[in-house]
Amino acid sequence: MLHPVVLSGGSGSRLWPLSRQNQPKQFLRLIGDHSLYQETVIRANKLPDAQPPVTVCSEDHRFMIGEQLQEVAIASGGILLEPIARNTAPAIAWAALHVMATDPEGSLLVMPADHLIEDENAFRVAVAAATGLAEQGWLVTFGITPDYPETGYGYILRGDALGADGYRVQRFVEKPDLATAERYVAEGRYAWNSGMFLFNASAYLDELARHAPAVLEATRAAYATSNKDLDFIRVAKDAFAANPNDSIDYAVMEKTERAAVVPVSCGWSDIGSWSSLWSVAQRDDDDNRHEGDVISVDTKRSLVRASDRRMIATIGVEDLVIIDTPDATLVARKDRVQDVKTVVDHLKAAGRQEHLFHRKVYRPWGSYDSIDMGERFQVKRIVVKPGAALSLQKHAHRAEHWIVVSGVAEVTCDDRVFDLHENESTYIPLGSVHRLRNRGTEPVELIEVQSGSYLGEDDIVRLEDVYGRS
Amino acid sequence: MLHPVVLSGGSGSRLWPLSRQNQPKQFLRLIGDHSLYQETVIRANKLPDAQPPVTVCSEDHRFMIGEQLQEVAIASGGILLEPIARNTAPAIAWAALHVMATDPEGSLLVMPADHLIEDENAFRVAVAAATGLAEQGWLVTFGITPDYPETGYGYILRGDALGADGYRVQRFVEKPDLATAERYVAEGRYAWNSGMFLFNASAYLDELARHAPAVLEATRAAYATSNKDLDFIRVAKDAFAANPNDSIDYAVMEKTERAAVVPVSCGWSDIGSWSSLWSVAQRDDDDNRHEGDVISVDTKRSLVRASDRRMIATIGVEDLVIIDTPDATLVARKDRVQDVKTVVDHLKAAGRQEHLFHRKVYRPWGSYDSIDMGERFQVKRIVVKPGAALSLQKHAHRAEHWIVVSGVAEVTCDDRVFDLHENESTYIPLGSVHRLRNRGTEPVELIEVQSGSYLGEDDIVRLEDVYGRS
Repeated sequence: MLHPVVLSGGSGSRLWPLSRQNQPKQFLRLIGDHSLYQETVIRANKLPDAQPPVTVCSEDHRFMIGEQLQEVAIASGGILLEPIARNTAPAIAWAALHVMATDPEGSLLVMPADHLIEDENAFRVAVAAATGLAEQGWLVTFGITPDYPETGYGYILRGDALGADGYRVQRFVEKPDLATAERYVAEGRYAWNSGMFLFNASAYLDELARHAPAVLEATRAAYATSNKDLDFIRVAKDAFAANPNDSIDYAVMEKTERAAVVPVSCGWSDIGSWSSLWSVAQRDDDDNRHEGDVISVDTKRSLVRASDRRMIATIGVEDLVIIDTPDATLVARKDRVQDVKTVVDHLKAAGRQEHLFHRKVYRPWGSYDSIDMGERFQVKRIVVKPGAALSLQKHAHRAEHWIVVSGVAEVTCDDRVFDLHENESTYIPLGSVHRLRNRGTEPVELIEVQSGSYLGEDDIVRLEDVYGRS
Repeated sequence: MLHPVVLSGGSGSRLWPLSRQNQPKQFLRLIGDHSLYQETVIRANKLPDAQPPVTVCSEDHRFMIGEQLQEVAIASGGILLEPIARNTAPAIAWAALHVMATDPEGSLLVMPADHLIEDENAFRVAVAAATGLAEQGWLVTFGITPDYPETGYGYILRGDALGADGYRVQRFVEKPDLATAERYVAEGRYAWNSGMFLFNASAYLDELARHAPAVLEATRAAYATSNKDLDFIRVAKDAFAANPNDSIDYAVMEKTERAAVVPVSCGWSDIGSWSSLWSVAQRDDDDNRHEGDVISVDTKRSLVRASDRRMIATIGVEDLVIIDTPDATLVARKDRVQDVKTVVDHLKAAGRQEHLFHRKVYRPWGSYDSIDMGERFQVKRIVVKPGAALSLQKHAHRAEHWIVVSGVAEVTCDDRVFDLHENESTYIPLGSVHRLRNRGTEPVELIEVQSGSYLGEDDIVRLEDVYGRS
């Protein structure tokens, strides 16, 4: 059986200000109604005989993963929470052990969570070809037929044909310079290294044993400490951290004799920058891509994204990227968007937050958005998901007013527990032990007005927490 | 005595999105801590023997004028509220009648409210020269020595010298084309028509009687209906509307034999566009002008203004104007900013609000800012000025929660009247007759959460209003 394994990595800096450390690219709705992660699991779910997808992600993103799966009603094959990032070789080894526990003959279709594939049919045909090769013991990588001499990707040189389905890998090559890339594209036997793979789980572990035994050993030891909590699976941090920080390419694919490549031309893009999003997006007659409330006058070849409740007007500009979010707006020349990194570095150095979080912050129980702030007050819009509860908590420096604007909240305030309906409010005095819970089936939305001398997120004492944060 | 007369006109579209119909250019803090209107009255106030300034403005802007005068602690010489715009000839005629009622020999120094003057000393010297000429019966206009061949201004050609102080006006000329403007600048006897004047009030009325008797007649008739309310003076709309829509240039200056011009080079600008603001503003080494929270990478010759609680990052851009406000952001090429008008026309045609109001709306009693909005709720931050009160009112479709975050509010809710202190809240049920008042000496700030099926500003029945709006 085929087990999709979705690798949810990425630092969230290349698509700043829309991507943030806490909400990297794969969770954003960049094109269409779904995030790239959701597109990835939906695509995988349509494959014949595909099992529920296994996701490997960081602890920080677990609730985002859970929520995004729920939104598209796709069952999880397990969410493996990396206690520390150790690159792809250990992540895939863990997924292989996880899959083999229930399906010792299972195959893995490994896919990064943040890639775009426009031609699903071509992808399905390639998966079928790769499945055939994997059954013969090959470790298959998908080689994207290059459209142009991209210097930002690694390339795969194919060797002898393996029947009609693919080729032996002759060589993996590093990111080339432009002249070399041009030669590769002209030559015809080079493909982009997409980071997607298909192989038998046990074949991967065999090759790990041969070429990167340290990975196999550390991952096995970590796997032995597995601890399941709903769909989430955790392992001991120390054990997992013993892994070397190796990619599957470096640890296995470049070394094994069993590497095969299936060429595919499926409208693939890793959307590695705002300019690459512009180039894959549908555009208007002036070659613009507009999202949200945009008025443009004599504007050409630009990507403009307005955020909620805000409009953007452009006049006489060309080749710009304009990305608006509630707390930060980027205006960049389209061929300079890689320097977003410079801005993010500047934010880091200044000890700021705009590269870490959005103004709206996702939490296990829902989200909050700081909609206004003054010297001694802050106003938040809080959403509590059905069945969710904030921690039982108290604050040393602030009192809170809550006004429910939709749903029914169950409020604990010291020794009282009561329901608060739409258009009802309550007051949480400074120092009171309190909790907000949603026992209903609809989200609870409320406005919180905080009042006090210090309003930082760290003024919180958690007495109990269903998410293990107390 | 010298009576400054400040003309507060302007439609508020050329500096959109910072200027709005309800908050035109003269009320904005474009350079430094004060608005252009405030700069104008401060500058006038420093002149020797200057009396409190008379302001002529539209009814819509009366509280803005009152508040801005109060902020800079300058007494008002009267705020004349035009019931309808009729251009400058009637406005100045009204000011002349107003001044002569208490000072029959008084002189008027007429100044548009929205011009920048960088060299106050040069301005003072010119005013002294003009005063001398006005005493001899001349109607003096200030002619700005041109720096460059501007095609957006009218020019004044000077004739014979009138002693050391100025010249007869030989001719007023319309906005020239570039070649003509270049010739004017080279020629040396042409000056920009600044729209500033100095003359004896009675001399102006005499010339009106001679050259534009309809203006004098209609303004006298309107003046006879004067009605004083604090500093505000109103006249009957029908009477004032009988005025022709004539400028002082057309009605008087181009026709009188008594027109003089005092040349002045005082760093004058009418800041008629974002590019002209850029050109008069102090700039950094890359020729950028940044205001607010801006991070710029390889950015040149650009004007970037971030708004409160928001940052703007720019990368690799040149010659751009980026103006951010809470509900709209403009990104324009600096040499295309005159097309802001196209955007404003688009907003008008679409029946939108972003050209009329800011998200934060000023009212006679203070201001409100719509900080968040959902399907059945809206959150506003409300500021009530000391001594001010909202109307006694009720709503048919919404209930309101009020949480005071600073100051002490006096609340009326049906038959109860009570004080609400910082960190206290109350509930105004749907249909209740209510009022908010600030009896204290500090502003009251509160958060209002509205809840209901319809949340438009027009769901209001005003039962009593201290500002005559019920």
